Amino acid sequence: MVNKNQVVIYGRHAVKAAVENPNRKIVKVMCLRENIGELKGKVAENKIFVADKKELEKILPQDAVHQGFVAIADMLNNISIEEVCEKAQEKRDCYLLVLDQVTDPQNIGAIIRSCAAFGSMALVVQDKNSPQESGAMLKAAAGTFENMPTCRVTNLSRALEQLKKAGFWVVGMDGYAKTNIDKLDKKGKLAVVMGSEGKGMRRLIEESCDLTVRLPIAENVESLNVSTAAAVVLYELSKK
Amino acid sequence: MVNKNQVVIYGRHAVKAAVENPNRKIVKVMCLRENIGELKGKVAENKIFVADKKELEKILPQDAVHQGFVAIADMLNNISIEEVCEKAQEKRDCYLLVLDQVTDPQNIGAIIRSCAAFGSMALVVQDKNSPQESGAMLKAAAGTFENMPTCRVTNLSRALEQLKKAGFWVVGMDGYAKTNIDKLDKKGKLAVVMGSEGKGMRRLIEESCDLTVRLPIAENVESLNVSTAAAVVLYELSKK
Repeated sequence: MVNKNQVVIYGRHAVKAAVENPNRKIVKVMCLRENIGELKGKVAENKIFVADKKELEKILPQDAVHQGFVAIADMLNNISIEEVCEKAQEKRDCYLLVLDQVTDPQNIGAIIRSCAAFGSMALVVQDKNSPQESGAMLKAAAGTFENMPTCRVTNLSRALEQLKKAGFWVVGMDGYAKTNIDKLDKKGKLAVVMGSEGKGMRRLIEESCDLTVRLPIAENVESLNVSTAAAVVLYELSKK
Repeated sequence: MVNKNQVVIYGRHAVKAAVENPNRKIVKVMCLRENIGELKGKVAENKIFVADKKELEKILPQDAVHQGFVAIADMLNNISIEEVCEKAQEKRDCYLLVLDQVTDPQNIGAIIRSCAAFGSMALVVQDKNSPQESGAMLKAAAGTFENMPTCRVTNLSRALEQLKKAGFWVVGMDGYAKTNIDKLDKKGKLAVVMGSEGKGMRRLIEESCDLTVRLPIAENVESLNVSTAAAVVLYELSKK
């Protein structure tokens, strides 16, 4: 029913944002009868199907919170690192987030939501280690996935070099860094790199950073959840 | 097997923090054989039982990520609002978080982790609407639940009045407020109130606030997840 270039989207915000995105090709939308008014005029009528709870649950992972909205759609196109660099040319001040080895789709979705809320220009991930667009990711992103350019690169170190050449200052988040993030000079173009919870960035990636900074957290607390830490980092970067 | 004053704790951080908490009465601990070394000397030997994956999963909710650690323990005692006020007397600058109508245990656990990371002196919730201590909450708190004083009050408005009398400035988070949170004067004692995602604070609670502030997020993003928003708020409050 769903091919490998398609995604099953669920949840009110995720489905409504998907059908309103002109770049998203919708195959079909299924919803509870009570929800059809919220979709009218946004999807071609021959693509909307009324379904009951059981029919929706049959095509979703167990316990998926669908709120009576499901859509099958093509995955979105990604943006290339060259396009990211080109877009940055037009801007004096901008920033983006780079994730190294973050593998949980819900964390990535939540991070995309924070990227959108705090004005990150894109999200960059390594193709090999990063999950593809999925229902769980889009649900956690609460509709913000549709407008956040995502860049999947083969080689993250090389991508960081390309960003540097395009004028980005590459800043790594590291719990052992000496400088707090609020002391960072936020003028110009910044690419902030975060590793996975626990493991952090890979050494090679850390060595590519121009500098590292840390979030000031209590000594008796080992770490923050990666999506929580990302939200705080993105908030701090948004305060130019 | 578990009575209503007990909780089934799971996950490495949650279980290890629980057994190291002198205020936590442990009934028994079950773990995979490979994990027993991490518990030795921290729990009485007659309380530790080696179990296989299936045995652990039998007593946990489906899909609970236990990492080979499960404990059955008494719930922790809560702190009263009077005790919170008394503790605050000793301090010139301090802050705490108040949640109105936040009901998801995982969100509350994640918020407790951020409270601990950014130095909140306590978490205050309304007893009736707030879930009890649970395995999912403690897992999301990643061990920080053990040392974060939690205060469950019957009447939240009255609790806010008590905090005001104790010298707290009561600040509500409200997406429609005119002032950004980073403009808040963070000297003295602050009690910051957050409502549920979507619904926000109840009107009566909002009317109890001395002032309201907002998180500056992009106009096209409706809201943040409540635990994400709390993390950013707590981070900002920690920057005195």
